[in-house]
Amino acid sequence: MSKLTHLNESGQAEMVDVTAKAVTERVAVAEATVTMQPATLKLIIEGGHKKGDVFTVAKIAGVQAAKQCANLIPLCHPLMLTSIKVDLQADEANNRVIIQSVCKLAGQTGVEMEALTAASVAALTIYDMCKAVDKTMVIGDIQILEKLGGKSGHWRAESVVEGSRG
Amino acid sequence: MSKLTHLNESGQAEMVDVTAKAVTERVAVAEATVTMQPATLKLIIEGGHKKGDVFTVAKIAGVQAAKQCANLIPLCHPLMLTSIKVDLQADEANNRVIIQSVCKLAGQTGVEMEALTAASVAALTIYDMCKAVDKTMVIGDIQILEKLGGKSGHWRAESVVEGSRG
Amino acid sequence: MSKLTHLNESGQAEMVDVTAKAVTERVAVAEATVTMQPATLKLIIEGGHKKGDVFTVAKIAGVQAAKQCANLIPLCHPLMLTSIKVDLQADEANNRVIIQSVCKLAGQTGVEMEALTAASVAALTIYDMCKAVDKTMVIGDIQILEKLGGKSGHWRAESVVEGSRG
Amino acid sequence: MSKLTHLNESGQAEMVDVTAKAVTERVAVAEATVTMQPATLKLIIEGGHKKGDVFTVAKIAGVQAAKQCANLIPLCHPLMLTSIKVDLQADEANNRVIIQSVCKLAGQTGVEMEALTAASVAALTIYDMCKAVDKTMVIGDIQILEKLGGKSGHWRAESVVEGSRG
Amino acid sequence: MSKLTHLNESGQAEMVDVTAKAVTERVAVAEATVTMQPATLKLIIEGGHKKGDVFTVAKIAGVQAAKQCANLIPLCHPLMLTSIKVDLQADEANNRVIIQSVCKLAGQTGVEMEALTAASVAALTIYDMCKAVDKTMVIGDIQILEKLGGKSGHWRAESVVEGSRG
Amino acid sequence: MSKLTHLNESGQAEMVDVTAKAVTERVAVAEATVTMQPATLKLIIEGGHKKGDVFTVAKIAGVQAAKQCANLIPLCHPLMLTSIKVDLQADEANNRVIIQSVCKLAGQTGVEMEALTAASVAALTIYDMCKAVDKTMVIGDIQILEKLGGKSGHWRAESVVEGSRG
Repeated sequence: MSKLTHLNESGQAEMVDVTAKAVTERVAVAEATVTMQPATLKLIIEGGHKKGDVFTVAKIAGVQAAKQCANLIPLCHPLMLTSIKVDLQADEANNRVIIQSVCKLAGQTGVEMEALTAASVAALTIYDMCKAVDKTMVIGDIQILEKLGGKSGHWRAESVVEGSRG
Repeated sequence: MSKLTHLNESGQAEMVDVTAKAVTERVAVAEATVTMQPATLKLIIEGGHKKGDVFTVAKIAGVQAAKQCANLIPLCHPLMLTSIKVDLQADEANNRVIIQSVCKLAGQTGVEMEALTAASVAALTIYDMCKAVDKTMVIGDIQILEKLGGKSGHWRAESVVEGSRG
Repeated sequence: MSKLTHLNESGQAEMVDVTAKAVTERVAVAEATVTMQPATLKLIIEGGHKKGDVFTVAKIAGVQAAKQCANLIPLCHPLMLTSIKVDLQADEANNRVIIQSVCKLAGQTGVEMEALTAASVAALTIYDMCKAVDKTMVIGDIQILEKLGGKSGHWRAESVVEGSRG
Repeated sequence: MSKLTHLNESGQAEMVDVTAKAVTERVAVAEATVTMQPATLKLIIEGGHKKGDVFTVAKIAGVQAAKQCANLIPLCHPLMLTSIKVDLQADEANNRVIIQSVCKLAGQTGVEMEALTAASVAALTIYDMCKAVDKTMVIGDIQILEKLGGKSGHWRAESVVEGSRG
Repeated sequence: MSKLTHLNESGQAEMVDVTAKAVTERVAVAEATVTMQPATLKLIIEGGHKKGDVFTVAKIAGVQAAKQCANLIPLCHPLMLTSIKVDLQADEANNRVIIQSVCKLAGQTGVEMEALTAASVAALTIYDMCKAVDKTMVIGDIQILEKLGGKSGHWRAESVVEGSRG
Repeated sequence: MSKLTHLNESGQAEMVDVTAKAVTERVAVAEATVTMQPATLKLIIEGGHKKGDVFTVAKIAGVQAAKQCANLIPLCHPLMLTSIKVDLQADEANNRVIIQSVCKLAGQTGVEMEALTAASVAALTIYDMCKAVDKTMVIGDIQILEKLGGKSGHWRAESVVEGSRG
């Protein structure tokens, strides 16, 4: 296993120098979930317009957070994303909301952190809008599902490869 | 179960008006974990100064994110936190890093979102610094462990009440 | 007519010192409109969920902008708003969207700029979402309708006083 | 008339994916006005240095706001503007200040929103500096006068084409 | 000499908890200088309006930076300054620009960092506007001249006490 | 000596239009120092982990500030840095901390301001963490040591050319 790329030889934190890296198209797909009480999920779902509203607020928060990624994560490079998508679905069977985000750009570094940040902040926004009725929510499953571009090419998480994910 | 506080009567998203609420001391304790391969955790731990560095970067990112909470979560109120603490521990038995954050202020609204945002962004920072060596990390367990102040007084998550948590 | 409060005696720009001003409850109501082609307005209105979405995005943008007011307007004081509301309505008779915003806090300075900023940015967001189908939109009528608190007490714009406004 | 580009097929808000769009030089010229009482405009104008100061503060606010555009307007792409100009003129015949902004870059999306944001925030800054002496100011006429680049090529507002504008 | 307040007992960086501290009026006066070639200073000074402009841009940058202090300095508390003043003077005898900033608020922590940040960023702005004609400028003398409020009461730098400063 | 590039012909502040400038690789190296009492420097140095922590916090603050440069310095262009490095050293012989920063990108404008901002904010962060034990610290020597790229090619400060600097 290789060294941590963000520590220099004397063990200090450092941004990776990407000046000489090739520009390639980069895509990253990330996921997050918010698990809640069944009654909380029902409140989000019931009434078409209400659902739209809660999910739209979370989606916008996720999109805006992706743009702030380099200001939040100290060693991330500033990037100009050409596409940010955040989708939310109610998963009633498992009492949770599933959030998927996709970020893209043609650039010198990957966009995993942008996608993860979008999914995380969308999840936090769901939490915020429901916390007055449910103190026991848990945000989890924040992970990369798929990435394209850069040295490692096309990579998919095992759960995606196995098709265990809808 | 009550209505969602962030939707008005016609179902539209709205910030809660806290103008008339009393100022009380508020504390919130939140948690997040980053689960990784054993070899990744070992890279973080080995060498005293290296560990300090990775954890210090994540801690600083968490503290800075707490201050940005109202800019990230659309319906959060701007707040002036009087204390933000972020602590990280390597939990080798479970191949993960555990992050705990504590936010405080004397104010009109709770600080749960600030504590959750601090823990989430600290976790994302750990992820960023290790992602080149481990694509399978998962961030999870983002939740409130304890809160003080406001209408609901002192509240603790069940895992805390039962003492199942160190 | 008095001097400009933001110029000191030698004519240079300066933030007003409010350290010694009393804390009173402040409210400001602002308005903005986006005038567009009838077909553009129809696209926004048709379909309940679509309308919700465009208006929700603009509303969230307005709320977030109010919090950024002191970072946008150089001589504004940083404030902790306790309530921000942004409402949008389609005014088909006049081919326009009407935006009203209300900001509140208990503080030492008024919140007019926060309300005006919320209304302006909500209008710009409507513009952004429709600009691909309509290049001739015009944003206008950005003004204060009513304010409460501070030295000048309760003030209403003439159009509000005369009841010429619904 | 085409669909709204910022709504996907199920009517939800979405950033437009510009990954595959060509990089061309983009220019946008926007305008805004602040109409005020004659005595207010006189206070701004009288004394060379004073005028310079009020207009310089507004100009700087406009330039800084253009850079913040993607953080204010949720579905705007982050851009790296190569030029931002904001000019202000006193139009005594009509008791108003006229603001014109020009934004440029070589990129994949237009810069109309950046130019409109610059003009709007410069107008709000004028408002802020004069509001203590004039509560009846109105910001209006926020519109695109001209744009260059992208699919629609060179476009000018009718008032510009007709030469009705100085 | 006491311990560093920003390191906890195990030597890790930590924000100081000010929840229990008394609210008192706080003032801090800071200074910075930009030393340059005589010809550069002359370019700034000559022509009344030009001087106004360069100094006004730097002043506005300083005021805006003071508001951003807690976002720039990781362990600073977010504060709501009630007054920020930045003054610039050409000191021809010593080929430099002298910047003084004053920040105020009634709060639980001092405002030294806000005043120092205002002076530093005003100095950087002067540097930016002159760097094309002078690569040898040096920013220095960034220090606190005077502070009021808090546990240490009224404190003045020795140079101020001795009256060696105009 | 040439004109100030940031003033237009009528003496008003203006961003330089770099739309037509060539993209070349740019590097800038900047420096800053924090001079303090010997006992203060000793507190920073003593204990390996403590030193790491103070310096790591300052380093992260510097890296994050470089990304914020265009938001702090009004007439700077937004840039996407591909590398930001900040190094800190205790210079016991002279009772000070020396900070060096290096910024890089392939772009149309130089990165001096980014490097200077990184060094300045790292210095301010050192100041913040030590100010409770030492009110007499002074930040100085903020200057460009070396730059590469653009019209002026490779430039080094005289102190670097003469080798008087380690």
